[in-house]
Amino acid sequence: MKFRRSERLIDMTHYLLEHPRQLVSLTFFSERYGSAKSSISEDLAIIKDTFELRGIGTLETVPGAAGGVRYQVKVRDEEAKPIIAELCELIASPDRLLPGGYLYMTDILGDPMIVQKCGKLIASAYINKNIDMVMTVATKGIALAYAVANYLNVPVVIARRDSRVTEGSTVSINYVSGSAKRIQTMVLSKRSLEEGSKVLIVDDFMKAGGTINGMISMLDEFKATLAGIAVLVESENADERLVDEYVSLVQLADVDVREKRINVTEGNYFKRN
Amino acid sequence: MKFRRSERLIDMTHYLLEHPRQLVSLTFFSERYGSAKSSISEDLAIIKDTFELRGIGTLETVPGAAGGVRYQVKVRDEEAKPIIAELCELIASPDRLLPGGYLYMTDILGDPMIVQKCGKLIASAYINKNIDMVMTVATKGIALAYAVANYLNVPVVIARRDSRVTEGSTVSINYVSGSAKRIQTMVLSKRSLEEGSKVLIVDDFMKAGGTINGMISMLDEFKATLAGIAVLVESENADERLVDEYVSLVQLADVDVREKRINVTEGNYFKRN
Repeated sequence: MKFRRSERLIDMTHYLLEHPRQLVSLTFFSERYGSAKSSISEDLAIIKDTFELRGIGTLETVPGAAGGVRYQVKVRDEEAKPIIAELCELIASPDRLLPGGYLYMTDILGDPMIVQKCGKLIASAYINKNIDMVMTVATKGIALAYAVANYLNVPVVIARRDSRVTEGSTVSINYVSGSAKRIQTMVLSKRSLEEGSKVLIVDDFMKAGGTINGMISMLDEFKATLAGIAVLVESENADERLVDEYVSLVQLADVDVREKRINVTEGNYFKRN
Repeated sequence: MKFRRSERLIDMTHYLLEHPRQLVSLTFFSERYGSAKSSISEDLAIIKDTFELRGIGTLETVPGAAGGVRYQVKVRDEEAKPIIAELCELIASPDRLLPGGYLYMTDILGDPMIVQKCGKLIASAYINKNIDMVMTVATKGIALAYAVANYLNVPVVIARRDSRVTEGSTVSINYVSGSAKRIQTMVLSKRSLEEGSKVLIVDDFMKAGGTINGMISMLDEFKATLAGIAVLVESENADERLVDEYVSLVQLADVDVREKRINVTEGNYFKRN
Protein backbone atom coordinates (compact mmCIF):
# COMPACT_ATOMS: atom_id res chain seq x y z
CA MET A 1 0.00 0.00 0.00
CA LYS A 2 1.35 3.38 -1.05
CA PHE A 3 0.89 6.61 0.79
CA ARG A 4 0.59 10.05 -0.66
CA ARG A 5 2.83 12.82 0.65
CA SER A 6 -0.01 14.49 2.55
CA GLU A 7 -0.79 11.24 4.38
CA ARG A 8 2.87 10.63 5.13
CA LEU A 9 3.31 14.13 6.55
CA ILE A 10 0.37 13.66 8.92
CA ASP A 11 1.42 10.21 10.08
CA MET A 12 5.10 11.14 10.42
CA THR A 13 4.20 14.22 12.45
CA HIS A 14 2.16 12.06 14.79
CA TYR A 15 4.89 9.42 15.02
CA LEU A 16 7.66 11.91 15.73
CA LEU A 17 5.63 13.78 18.36
CA GLU A 18 4.90 10.47 20.10
CA HIS A 19 8.58 9.52 20.13
CA PRO A 20 10.50 12.56 21.31
CA ARG A 21 14.29 12.29 21.40
CA GLN A 22 14.20 8.89 19.74
CA LEU A 23 16.34 8.26 16.68
CA VAL A 24 14.10 7.11 13.81
CA SER A 25 15.81 5.77 10.71
CA LEU A 26 14.81 6.74 7.19
CA THR A 27 14.47 3.02 6.49
CA PHE A 28 11.75 2.77 9.13
CA PHE A 29 9.66 5.46 7.46
CA SER A 30 10.51 4.20 3.99
CA GLU A 31 9.16 0.73 4.86
CA ARG A 32 6.21 2.12 6.78
CA TYR A 33 4.94 3.93 3.69
CA GLY A 34 6.47 1.92 0.85
CA SER A 35 8.17 5.10 -0.34
CA ALA A 36 11.66 5.84 -1.61
CA LYS A 37 14.12 7.24 0.92
CA SER A 38 14.51 10.33 -1.24
CA SER A 39 10.79 11.09 -0.81
CA ILE A 40 11.07 10.51 2.94
CA SER A 41 14.01 12.92 3.07
CA GLU A 42 11.94 15.57 1.36
CA ASP A 43 9.04 14.94 3.75
CA LEU A 44 11.35 15.33 6.74
CA ALA A 45 12.76 18.59 5.38
CA ILE A 46 9.22 19.99 5.17
CA ILE A 47 8.40 18.75 8.68
CA LYS A 48 11.63 20.22 10.08
CA ASP A 49 10.90 23.64 8.54
CA THR A 50 7.32 23.66 9.78
CA PHE A 51 8.26 22.46 13.28
CA GLU A 52 10.80 25.28 13.55
CA LEU A 53 8.56 27.90 12.01
CA ARG A 54 5.62 27.07 14.29
CA GLY A 55 7.70 26.55 17.44
CA ILE A 56 6.82 22.85 17.68
CA GLY A 57 10.48 21.88 18.07
CA THR A 58 13.33 20.77 15.88
CA LEU A 59 14.30 17.71 13.88
CA GLU A 60 17.93 16.75 14.28
CA THR A 61 19.44 14.80 11.44
CA VAL A 62 22.00 12.13 12.25
CA PRO A 63 23.90 11.17 9.07
CA GLY A 64 25.28 7.74 8.16
CA ALA A 65 24.04 4.16 8.03
CA ALA A 66 22.97 4.17 11.69
CA GLY A 67 21.50 7.64 11.29
CA GLY A 68 18.04 9.06 11.03
CA VAL A 69 16.06 11.91 12.55
CA ARG A 70 15.26 12.85 16.09
CA TYR A 71 12.45 15.14 17.25
CA GLN A 72 13.39 17.47 20.07
CA VAL A 73 10.92 19.71 21.82
CA LYS A 74 12.02 23.34 21.82
CA VAL A 75 9.90 26.20 23.08
CA ARG A 76 11.06 29.62 22.00
CA ASP A 77 11.16 32.38 24.60
CA GLU A 78 8.46 34.35 22.78
CA GLU A 79 6.11 31.36 23.14
CA ALA A 80 7.15 30.69 26.72
CA LYS A 81 6.42 34.28 27.79
CA PRO A 82 2.61 34.16 27.44
CA ILE A 83 2.46 30.67 29.02
CA ILE A 84 4.33 31.89 32.11
CA ALA A 85 2.35 35.13 32.19
CA GLU A 86 -0.89 33.14 32.18
CA LEU A 87 0.45 30.93 34.97
CA CYS A 88 1.36 34.00 37.06
CA GLU A 89 -2.12 35.40 36.67
CA LEU A 90 -3.68 32.06 37.62
CA ILE A 91 -1.55 31.77 40.75
CA ALA A 92 -2.00 35.38 41.86
CA SER A 93 -5.64 34.87 42.83
CA PRO A 94 -5.92 35.77 46.54
CA ASP A 95 -8.33 32.92 47.35
CA ARG A 96 -5.41 30.53 46.90
CA LEU A 97 -3.90 31.69 50.18
CA LEU A 98 -3.94 29.03 52.87
CA PRO A 99 -2.95 29.29 56.55
CA GLY A 100 0.84 29.54 56.95
CA GLY A 101 1.35 31.34 53.65
CA TYR A 102 0.92 28.15 51.62
CA LEU A 103 -0.84 28.27 48.30
CA TYR A 104 -3.66 26.08 47.04
CA MET A 105 -2.43 24.85 43.66
CA THR A 106 -4.28 21.54 43.43
CA ASP A 107 -6.53 22.76 40.63
CA ILE A 108 -3.59 24.04 38.57
CA LEU A 109 -1.58 20.85 39.09
CA GLY A 110 -4.72 18.84 38.35
CA ASP A 111 -5.15 20.32 34.88
CA PRO A 112 -3.29 18.07 32.44
CA MET A 113 -3.12 20.80 29.76
CA ILE A 114 -1.36 23.25 32.09
CA VAL A 115 0.94 20.55 33.42
CA GLN A 116 1.85 19.51 29.85
CA LYS A 117 2.72 23.07 28.90
CA CYS A 118 4.88 23.55 32.00
CA GLY A 119 6.57 20.20 31.39
CA LYS A 120 7.32 21.26 27.83
CA LEU A 121 8.94 24.49 29.00
CA ILE A 122 11.11 22.67 31.54
CA ALA A 123 12.08 19.89 29.11
CA SER A 124 12.97 22.57 26.58
CA ALA A 125 15.38 24.14 29.09
CA TYR A 126 17.22 20.83 29.58
CA ILE A 127 17.05 19.44 26.07
CA ASN A 128 20.78 19.80 25.47
CA LYS A 129 21.77 18.33 28.84
CA ASN A 130 22.59 14.70 29.31
CA ILE A 131 19.70 13.39 31.43
CA ASP A 132 18.92 9.75 32.25
CA MET A 133 16.04 10.18 34.67
CA VAL A 134 13.63 12.61 36.24
CA MET A 135 13.19 12.43 40.02
CA THR A 136 10.47 13.88 42.20
CA VAL A 137 8.97 13.28 45.62
CA ALA A 138 5.36 12.25 46.15
CA THR A 139 2.76 13.64 45.64
CA LYS A 140 2.25 17.03 44.07
CA GLY A 141 5.21 17.09 41.72
CA ILE A 142 4.49 13.74 40.10
CA ALA A 143 2.37 14.94 37.18
CA LEU A 144 4.86 17.66 36.27
CA ALA A 145 7.75 15.19 36.53
CA TYR A 146 6.03 12.84 34.06
CA ALA A 147 5.27 15.68 31.68
CA VAL A 148 8.96 16.66 31.65
CA ALA A 149 10.09 13.03 31.36
CA ASN A 150 7.73 12.44 28.49
CA TYR A 151 9.35 15.16 26.39
CA LEU A 152 12.84 14.05 27.43
CA ASN A 153 11.94 10.38 26.84
CA VAL A 154 13.44 9.20 30.14
CA PRO A 155 11.93 7.31 33.11
CA VAL A 156 10.62 8.88 36.32
CA VAL A 157 11.64 7.84 39.80
CA ILE A 158 9.48 8.87 42.76
CA ALA A 159 10.76 9.20 46.32
CA ARG A 160 8.13 8.79 49.02
CA ARG A 161 7.57 9.84 52.61
CA ASP A 162 6.75 6.33 53.71
CA SER A 163 7.84 2.90 52.61
CA ARG A 164 5.28 0.64 50.91
CA VAL A 165 5.33 -3.09 50.43
CA THR A 166 5.03 -2.74 46.65
CA GLU A 167 8.37 -0.96 46.41
CA GLY A 168 10.51 -3.92 47.47
CA SER A 169 13.66 -3.02 49.43
CA THR A 170 14.15 0.69 49.94
CA VAL A 171 16.82 3.16 50.96
CA SER A 172 15.70 5.65 53.56
CA ILE A 173 17.26 9.00 54.43
CA ASN A 174 16.45 11.77 56.89
CA TYR A 175 16.54 15.39 55.93
CA VAL A 176 15.63 18.76 57.43
CA SER A 177 12.81 20.55 55.72
CA GLY A 178 14.18 24.05 55.28
CA SER A 179 11.10 26.08 56.09
CA ALA A 180 9.67 24.12 59.02
CA LYS A 181 13.08 22.91 60.29
CA ARG A 182 11.55 19.51 60.93
CA ILE A 183 13.31 16.20 60.46
CA GLN A 184 11.61 14.26 57.70
CA THR A 185 12.11 10.90 56.06
CA MET A 186 12.31 10.07 52.37
CA VAL A 187 12.47 6.56 50.93
CA LEU A 188 13.32 5.29 47.49
CA SER A 189 13.06 1.80 46.06
CA LYS A 190 16.51 0.24 45.72
CA ARG A 191 15.80 -1.04 42.24
CA SER A 192 14.55 2.23 40.88
CA LEU A 193 17.75 4.21 40.36
CA GLU A 194 20.94 2.96 38.73
CA GLU A 195 24.38 3.99 39.92
CA GLY A 196 25.84 6.76 37.79
CA SER A 197 22.49 8.02 36.48
CA LYS A 198 22.26 11.71 35.63
CA VAL A 199 19.12 12.95 37.30
CA LEU A 200 16.94 16.01 36.78
CA ILE A 201 14.99 16.86 39.94
CA VAL A 202 11.50 18.28 39.30
CA ASP A 203 9.08 19.56 41.91
CA ASP A 204 6.00 21.73 42.07
CA PHE A 205 7.06 24.13 44.82
CA MET A 206 10.30 25.20 46.45
CA LYS A 207 10.40 27.17 49.66
CA ALA A 208 13.80 27.03 51.33
CA GLY A 209 14.70 23.97 49.26
CA GLY A 210 14.94 21.42 52.08
CA THR A 211 12.99 18.73 50.24
CA ILE A 212 15.07 19.19 47.13
CA ASN A 213 18.19 19.00 49.29
CA GLY A 214 16.80 15.71 50.61
CA MET A 215 16.50 14.41 47.06
CA ILE A 216 20.11 15.45 46.40
CA SER A 217 21.21 13.45 49.49
CA MET A 218 19.23 10.53 48.09
CA LEU A 219 21.13 10.81 44.80
CA ASP A 220 24.39 10.57 46.81
CA GLU A 221 23.15 7.37 48.43
CA PHE A 222 22.60 5.88 44.99
CA LYS A 223 25.88 7.29 43.61
CA ALA A 224 23.83 9.16 41.03
CA THR A 225 24.60 12.65 39.71
CA LEU A 226 22.50 15.79 39.85
CA ALA A 227 21.89 17.07 36.32
CA GLY A 228 19.54 19.92 37.19
CA ILE A 229 16.70 21.19 39.36
CA ALA A 230 13.45 22.62 38.03
CA VAL A 231 10.40 23.84 39.92
CA LEU A 232 7.08 25.25 38.89
CA VAL A 233 6.94 27.82 41.69
CA GLU A 234 9.65 29.20 43.96
CA SER A 235 8.65 31.20 46.98
CA GLU A 236 10.34 34.35 48.21
CA ASN A 237 13.18 34.46 50.78
CA ALA A 238 15.87 33.60 48.28
CA ASP A 239 18.50 34.56 50.89
CA GLU A 240 17.71 31.46 52.96
CA ARG A 241 17.73 29.15 49.94
CA LEU A 242 19.55 25.85 50.48
CA VAL A 243 19.78 25.16 46.76
CA ASP A 244 21.84 27.20 44.28
CA GLU A 245 21.21 26.42 40.67
CA TYR A 246 17.68 25.77 39.57
CA VAL A 247 15.13 26.79 36.99
CA SER A 248 11.76 28.17 38.14
CA LEU A 249 8.81 29.15 36.01
CA VAL A 250 7.13 31.39 38.55
CA GLN A 251 8.25 33.25 41.66
CA LEU A 252 6.12 34.29 44.62
CA ALA A 253 6.89 37.52 46.41
CA ASP A 254 5.16 39.45 49.17
CA VAL A 255 2.76 36.77 50.29
CA ASP A 256 0.69 38.59 52.88
CA VAL A 257 -1.86 36.29 54.49
CA ARG A 258 -3.53 39.01 56.53
CA GLU A 259 -3.97 41.38 53.59
CA LYS A 260 -4.76 38.45 51.26
CA ARG A 261 -2.19 39.62 48.77
CA ILE A 262 0.15 37.55 46.57
CA ASN A 263 2.64 39.08 44.23
CA VAL A 264 3.55 36.66 41.47
CA THR A 265 6.31 37.27 38.94
CA GLU A 266 8.23 35.33 36.32
CA GLY A 267 10.74 32.87 37.74
CA ASN A 268 14.33 32.72 36.55
CA TYR A 269 13.38 30.66 33.46
CA PHE A 270 14.46 33.30 30.97
CA LYS A 271 17.68 34.02 32.87
CA ARG A 272 18.97 30.48 32.51
CA ASN A 273 22.08 29.94 30.44
CA MET B 1 1.89 35.13 5.75
CA LYS B 2 0.50 32.25 3.70
CA PHE B 3 0.97 28.59 4.40
CA ARG B 4 1.19 25.78 1.91
CA ARG B 5 -1.00 22.73 2.35
CA SER B 6 1.89 20.55 3.53
CA GLU B 7 2.76 23.04 6.27
CA ARG B 8 -0.87 23.38 7.29
CA LEU B 9 -1.28 19.59 7.54
CA ILE B 10 1.75 19.29 9.83
CA ASP B 11 0.76 22.17 12.07
CA MET B 12 -2.92 21.17 12.23
CA THR B 13 -1.96 17.61 13.13
CA HIS B 14 0.19 18.92 15.97
CA TYR B 15 -2.51 21.33 17.12
CA LEU B 16 -5.28 18.72 17.11
CA LEU B 17 -3.16 16.12 18.93
CA GLU B 18 -2.34 18.70 21.61
CA HIS B 19 -6.02 19.59 22.08
CA PRO B 20 -7.91 16.31 22.30
CA ARG B 21 -11.69 16.52 22.63
CA GLN B 22 -11.63 20.26 22.13
CA LEU B 23 -13.89 21.82 19.51
CA VAL B 24 -11.74 23.85 17.10
CA SER B 25 -13.56 26.11 14.64
CA LEU B 26 -12.70 26.32 10.96
CA THR B 27 -12.36 30.07 11.49
CA PHE B 28 -9.54 29.48 13.95
CA PHE B 29 -7.53 27.48 11.43
CA SER B 30 -8.52 29.78 8.58
CA GLU B 31 -7.13 32.80 10.46
CA ARG B 32 -4.10 30.90 11.72
CA TYR B 33 -2.96 30.17 8.17
CA GLY B 34 -4.55 32.97 6.18
CA SER B 35 -6.34 30.33 4.10
CA ALA B 36 -9.88 30.01 2.80
CA LYS B 37 -12.25 27.86 4.83
CA SER B 38 -12.75 25.62 1.81
CA SER B 39 -9.01 24.78 1.84
CA ILE B 40 -9.14 24.13 5.59
CA SER B 41 -12.09 21.78 5.06
CA GLU B 42 -10.10 19.83 2.49
CA ASP B 43 -7.11 19.67 4.86
CA LEU B 44 -9.31 18.35 7.65
CA ALA B 45 -10.78 15.68 5.37
CA ILE B 46 -7.26 14.43 4.59
CA ILE B 47 -6.31 14.50 8.29
CA LYS B 48 -9.48 12.64 9.25
CA ASP B 49 -8.85 9.90 6.68
CA THR B 50 -5.23 9.49 7.71
CA PHE B 51 -6.03 9.52 11.44
CA GLU B 52 -8.58 6.75 10.89
CA LEU B 53 -6.42 4.77 8.50
CA ARG B 54 -3.40 4.83 10.82
CA GLY B 55 -5.33 4.32 14.05
CA ILE B 56 -4.44 7.75 15.41
CA GLY B 57 -8.05 8.52 16.26
CA THR B 58 -10.98 10.26 14.65
CA LEU B 59 -12.02 13.79 13.77
CA GLU B 60 -15.62 14.55 14.61
CA THR B 61 -17.23 17.30 12.59
CA VAL B 62 -19.74 19.54 14.29
CA PRO B 63 -21.74 21.47 11.69
CA GLY B 64 -23.15 24.97 11.97
CA ALA B 65 -21.90 28.43 12.94
CA ALA B 66 -20.66 27.26 16.34
CA GLY B 67 -19.22 24.11 14.80
CA GLY B 68 -15.78 22.86 13.97
CA VAL B 69 -13.78 19.70 14.43
CA ARG B 70 -12.86 17.68 17.46
CA TYR B 71 -10.03 15.14 17.70
CA GLN B 72 -10.87 12.03 19.67
CA VAL B 73 -8.35 9.35 20.52
CA LYS B 74 -9.47 5.92 19.38
CA VAL B 75 -7.33 2.83 19.57
CA ARG B 76 -8.56 -0.08 17.49
CA ASP B 77 -8.54 -3.51 19.06
CA GLU B 78 -5.94 -4.77 16.60
CA GLU B 79 -3.57 -2.06 17.82
CA ALA B 80 -4.46 -2.57 21.46
CA LYS B 81 -3.72 -6.32 21.28
CA PRO B 82 0.07 -6.05 20.84
CA ILE B 83 0.31 -3.28 23.44
CA ILE B 84 -1.44 -5.42 26.04
CA ALA B 85 0.53 -8.52 24.99
CA GLU B 86 3.78 -6.60 25.51
CA LEU B 87 2.55 -5.43 28.90
CA CYS B 88 1.71 -9.01 29.92
CA GLU B 89 5.18 -10.17 28.97
CA LEU B 90 6.79 -7.33 30.87
CA ILE B 91 4.78 -8.07 34.02
CA ALA B 92 5.25 -11.85 33.88
CA SER B 93 8.93 -11.63 34.82
CA PRO B 94 9.36 -13.68 38.04
CA ASP B 95 11.81 -11.23 39.63
CA ARG B 96 8.89 -8.83 40.07
CA LEU B 97 7.49 -11.00 42.85
CA LEU B 98 7.62 -9.35 46.26
CA PRO B 99 6.80 -10.80 49.70
CA GLY B 100 3.03 -11.19 50.14
CA GLY B 101 2.37 -11.81 46.46
CA TYR B 102 2.75 -8.14 45.56
CA LEU B 103 4.37 -7.18 42.31
CA TYR B 104 7.16 -4.70 41.73
CA MET B 105 5.80 -2.46 38.97
CA THR B 106 7.66 0.76 39.75
CA ASP B 107 9.80 0.53 36.61
CA ILE B 108 6.76 -0.04 34.37
CA LEU B 109 4.82 2.79 35.97
CA GLY B 110 7.94 4.98 35.80
CA ASP B 111 8.21 4.67 32.02
CA PRO B 112 6.26 7.59 30.51
CA MET B 113 5.96 5.86 27.10
CA ILE B 114 4.29 2.78 28.59
CA VAL B 115 2.06 4.90 30.81
CA GLN B 116 1.02 7.02 27.82
CA LYS B 117 0.08 3.95 25.80
CA CYS B 118 -1.95 2.49 28.65
CA GLY B 119 -3.61 5.84 29.23
CA LYS B 120 -4.53 5.98 25.56
CA LEU B 121 -6.13 2.53 25.69
CA ILE B 122 -8.18 3.42 28.76
CA ALA B 123 -9.22 6.82 27.38
CA SER B 124 -10.24 5.10 24.17
CA ALA B 125 -12.55 2.78 26.13
CA TYR B 126 -14.35 5.74 27.75
CA ILE B 127 -14.32 8.21 24.88
CA ASN B 128 -18.07 8.03 24.34
CA LYS B 129 -18.92 8.32 28.03
CA ASN B 130 -19.69 11.59 29.70
CA ILE B 131 -16.72 12.17 32.00
CA ASP B 132 -15.87 15.36 33.90
CA MET B 133 -12.90 14.20 35.96
CA VAL B 134 -10.45 11.40 36.56
CA MET B 135 -9.85 10.36 40.17
CA THR B 136 -7.06 8.30 41.65
CA VAL B 137 -5.42 7.77 45.04
CA ALA B 138 -1.78 8.61 45.73
CA THR B 139 0.79 7.49 44.66
CA LYS B 140 1.22 4.79 42.06
CA GLY B 141 -1.85 5.45 39.94
CA ILE B 142 -1.17 9.15 39.48
CA ALA B 143 0.83 8.98 36.23
CA LEU B 144 -1.73 6.68 34.60
CA ALA B 145 -4.58 8.91 35.75
CA TYR B 146 -2.94 11.94 34.11
CA ALA B 147 -2.30 10.03 30.90
CA VAL B 148 -5.98 9.08 30.72
CA ALA B 149 -7.11 12.60 31.67
CA ASN B 150 -4.86 14.11 29.04
CA TYR B 151 -6.58 12.20 26.25
CA LEU B 152 -10.02 12.88 27.73
CA ASN B 153 -9.12 16.55 28.32
CA VAL B 154 -10.48 16.58 31.88
CA PRO B 155 -8.86 17.43 35.23
CA VAL B 156 -7.41 14.94 37.71
CA VAL B 157 -8.28 14.77 41.37
CA ILE B 158 -6.01 12.87 43.77
CA ALA B 159 -7.16 11.40 47.07
CA ARG B 160 -4.41 10.93 49.67
CA ARG B 161 -3.73 8.77 52.69
CA ASP B 162 -2.85 11.79 54.83
CA SER B 163 -3.97 15.38 54.95
CA ARG B 164 -1.47 18.09 53.97
CA VAL B 165 -1.52 21.78 54.74
CA THR B 166 -1.35 22.65 51.03
CA GLU B 167 -4.74 21.03 50.35
CA GLY B 168 -6.80 23.46 52.40
CA SER B 169 -9.87 21.95 54.10
CA THR B 170 -10.36 18.27 53.39
CA VAL B 171 -13.00 15.57 53.66
CA SER B 172 -11.78 12.38 55.27
CA ILE B 173 -13.34 8.91 55.08
CA ASN B 174 -12.46 5.51 56.48
CA TYR B 175 -12.62 2.37 54.40
CA VAL B 176 -11.68 -1.27 54.71
CA SER B 177 -8.92 -2.41 52.41
CA GLY B 178 -10.35 -5.57 50.91
CA SER B 179 -7.27 -7.76 50.90
CA ALA B 180 -5.70 -6.84 54.26
CA LYS B 181 -9.05 -6.12 55.98
CA ARG B 182 -7.50 -3.10 57.62
CA ILE B 183 -9.22 0.19 58.32
CA GLN B 184 -7.59 2.92 56.27
CA THR B 185 -8.14 6.63 55.80
CA MET B 186 -8.47 8.60 52.60
CA VAL B 187 -8.66 12.38 52.37
CA LEU B 188 -9.64 14.69 49.56
CA SER B 189 -9.41 18.45 49.32
CA LYS B 190 -12.86 20.03 49.65
CA ARG B 191 -12.30 22.37 46.75
CA SER B 192 -11.12 19.71 44.35
CA LEU B 193 -14.34 17.99 43.34
CA GLU B 194 -17.58 19.68 42.33
CA GLU B 195 -21.00 18.29 43.25
CA GLY B 196 -22.53 16.33 40.42
CA SER B 197 -19.25 15.60 38.62
CA LYS B 198 -19.09 12.40 36.61
CA VAL B 199 -15.89 10.69 37.67
CA LEU B 200 -13.75 7.98 36.10
CA ILE B 201 -11.68 6.16 38.74
CA VAL B 202 -8.24 5.06 37.54
CA ASP B 203 -5.71 3.03 39.50
CA ASP B 204 -2.64 0.93 38.83
CA PHE B 205 -3.61 -2.23 40.69
CA MET B 206 -6.80 -3.79 42.02
CA LYS B 207 -6.77 -6.70 44.41
CA ALA B 208 -10.10 -7.11 46.18
CA GLY B 209 -11.07 -3.56 45.24
CA GLY B 210 -11.17 -2.05 48.74
CA THR B 211 -9.28 1.08 47.80
CA ILE B 212 -11.50 1.64 44.79
CA ASN B 213 -14.52 1.11 47.01
CA GLY B 214 -13.04 3.78 49.27
CA MET B 215 -12.90 6.17 46.33
CA ILE B 216 -16.53 5.39 45.51
CA SER B 217 -17.49 6.27 49.10
CA MET B 218 -15.56 9.50 48.66
CA LEU B 219 -17.60 10.28 45.54
CA ASP B 220 -20.76 9.83 47.64
CA GLU B 221 -19.44 12.35 50.17
CA PHE B 222 -19.00 14.88 47.37
CA LYS B 223 -22.36 13.98 45.75
CA ALA B 224 -20.42 13.04 42.61
CA THR B 225 -21.26 10.16 40.26
CA LEU B 226 -19.19 7.16 39.30
CA ALA B 227 -18.74 7.08 35.52
CA GLY B 228 -16.37 4.14 35.33
CA ILE B 229 -13.43 2.24 36.86
CA ALA B 230 -10.26 1.35 35.00
CA VAL B 231 -7.14 -0.39 36.28
CA LEU B 232 -3.87 -1.37 34.72
CA VAL B 233 -3.65 -4.72 36.52
CA GLU B 234 -6.27 -6.76 38.34
CA SER B 235 -5.15 -9.64 40.51
CA GLU B 236 -6.81 -13.02 40.72
CA ASN B 237 -9.55 -13.95 43.26
CA ALA B 238 -12.34 -12.37 41.27
CA ASP B 239 -14.86 -14.14 43.54
CA GLU B 240 -13.94 -11.87 46.45
CA ARG B 241 -14.09 -8.73 44.34
CA LEU B 242 -15.86 -5.78 46.00
CA VAL B 243 -16.26 -3.93 42.71
CA ASP B 244 -18.42 -5.05 39.79
CA GLU B 245 -17.93 -3.17 36.59
CA TYR B 246 -14.45 -2.16 35.62
CA VAL B 247 -12.01 -2.28 32.74
CA SER B 248 -8.62 -3.94 33.25
CA LEU B 249 -5.74 -4.13 30.79
CA VAL B 250 -3.98 -7.08 32.42
CA GLN B 251 -4.99 -9.85 34.80
CA LEU B 252 -2.75 -11.75 37.18
CA ALA B 253 -3.46 -15.40 37.86
CA ASP B 254 -1.63 -18.11 39.78
CA VAL B 255 0.83 -15.91 41.61
CA ASP B 256 2.99 -18.46 43.40
CA VAL B 257 5.59 -16.76 45.57
CA ARG B 258 7.35 -19.98 46.54
CA GLU B 259 7.64 -21.27 42.99
CA LYS B 260 8.36 -17.74 41.71
CA ARG B 261 5.69 -18.06 39.06
CA ILE B 262 3.29 -15.42 37.72
CA ASN B 263 0.69 -16.15 35.12
CA VAL B 264 -0.32 -12.98 33.32
CA THR B 265 -3.17 -12.75 30.84
CA GLU B 266 -5.19 -10.08 29.07
CA GLY B 267 -7.62 -8.24 31.31
CA ASN B 268 -11.26 -7.74 30.38
CA TYR B 269 -10.41 -4.78 28.09
CA PHE B 270 -11.62 -6.49 24.93
CA LYS B 271 -14.76 -7.79 26.61
CA ARG B 272 -16.04 -4.34 27.48
CA ASN B 273 -19.23 -3.17 25.84
